[in-house]
Amino acid sequence: MSAGKPKIRLYVGQRLAAAGEVTLGDRQAHYLAHVMRLSRGQAVLVFNDQDGEWRARLEDVARGRALMVVDAQLRVPRAEPGPWLLFSPVKKSSIDFVAEKATELGVSRLWPVYTVRTQTRRISLDRLRNRAVEAAEQCGRLTIPEVWRPISLAALAENWPNDRPLVVLDEHGGGRPINKVLEAFSIPSATHAGFLAGPEGGFAVSELDALAALPFVTRASLGPRILRSETAAIAALVCWQALIGDWTEPPAGR
Amino acid sequence: MSAGKPKIRLYVGQRLAAAGEVTLGDRQAHYLAHVMRLSRGQAVLVFNDQDGEWRARLEDVARGRALMVVDAQLRVPRAEPGPWLLFSPVKKSSIDFVAEKATELGVSRLWPVYTVRTQTRRISLDRLRNRAVEAAEQCGRLTIPEVWRPISLAALAENWPNDRPLVVLDEHGGGRPINKVLEAFSIPSATHAGFLAGPEGGFAVSELDALAALPFVTRASLGPRILRSETAAIAALVCWQALIGDWTEPPAGR
Repeated sequence: MSAGKPKIRLYVGQRLAAAGEVTLGDRQAHYLAHVMRLSRGQAVLVFNDQDGEWRARLEDVARGRALMVVDAQLRVPRAEPGPWLLFSPVKKSSIDFVAEKATELGVSRLWPVYTVRTQTRRISLDRLRNRAVEAAEQCGRLTIPEVWRPISLAALAENWPNDRPLVVLDEHGGGRPINKVLEAFSIPSATHAGFLAGPEGGFAVSELDALAALPFVTRASLGPRILRSETAAIAALVCWQALIGDWTEPPAGR
Repeated sequence: MSAGKPKIRLYVGQRLAAAGEVTLGDRQAHYLAHVMRLSRGQAVLVFNDQDGEWRARLEDVARGRALMVVDAQLRVPRAEPGPWLLFSPVKKSSIDFVAEKATELGVSRLWPVYTVRTQTRRISLDRLRNRAVEAAEQCGRLTIPEVWRPISLAALAENWPNDRPLVVLDEHGGGRPINKVLEAFSIPSATHAGFLAGPEGGFAVSELDALAALPFVTRASLGPRILRSETAAIAALVCWQALIGDWTEPPAGR
């Protein structure tokens, strides 16, 4: 076996410290013991927002719990600022997709928004968070995006922080091209941006008009083809990372 | 009913001309008659690469065939140049995803590539093409991306056209940030670019070394997080469209 970095990487809610113990619940214990067939003494990576990334060794698995002993810190904790993504829930597979890709693309908050044409009002926040956790484990993040409870578009408009730009992805072409919108942002405000993607079928015209009148809203367009809601959301996050975010940095932890 | 543009939009391989007839096969006939419950005389949009987009009316549905009569041309045919996407086949749902999103993002060729670590060597080109057709119908394209037969990485390197840049998405951080890579391209060559995304688990080091030595290859990095293969592919196409492609244009046909 390689003496390199362990391949398995798990998010752990408990505090991590040298020689400390961590108990993993059913889902993660099953994954380690039965999916990955990890044996006693083998190492995995564990991480969380507060303590960074640590090496830990499997001590024992029994009755659906796994006991790990924490070894050495490999990465110190670090804030991972990123934009917020506000999206109108679509079908389940697309929500899974949005949660996974947005996490890989460094989003800091996932926030469902109900619009006039939103078809799905039943969204499982647990499922959304689990997808985000899995994606964070896989892509090497140290933090998990916050998952916020759904909000109506009207309530969002009323409660939005005035100093944070909200970029509305307007499929009617009412905005400037997204790279021009992002280039015009000053860097400090841009790191706090939010992106709002509409539902399948688009925003209602009345919604777009109301949004356009808000002082913190900028509308952006994503070209001549009609993108699906989740494609637009992901495309906006990619543009943000490429133009403003951290894509000038090398891969983490290599 | 609205007198506006028909909502249903179908790709049709037959030639389209005023007063001409078009016969749709089983899949499309079923879709019109049973999924969309279209009645005789109702209009749909039909399009192809050679003849552009036309309005057509349902004349008859019987025995798994639908007869349409072509009415007026709404959009003239137009080339839709876009980059090529070369990707290592991953699991089926991810291939579907790549075909759909890449088509929405204006790719002109989908080309599977087998690398050392490619896990899946069974890929259905029919399925790939069907997903691309459906996405083209939905997003308003006039053309369908070409679907090419899988090629080995070695054969690709030997047969690649020298005047076309090939951007390798290098998850080891061996390249410059992708927006810097794209900004350095001259526009005529950039419209002919290809993007190569590696398999799950990444390229082998020997593959990356061989690729880096080719005169037409540029390596690009996509930041500190480890993106899944299909996320990297889509992210590259988004960057290309935002920085070089047609995203300065308004939505088509509105």
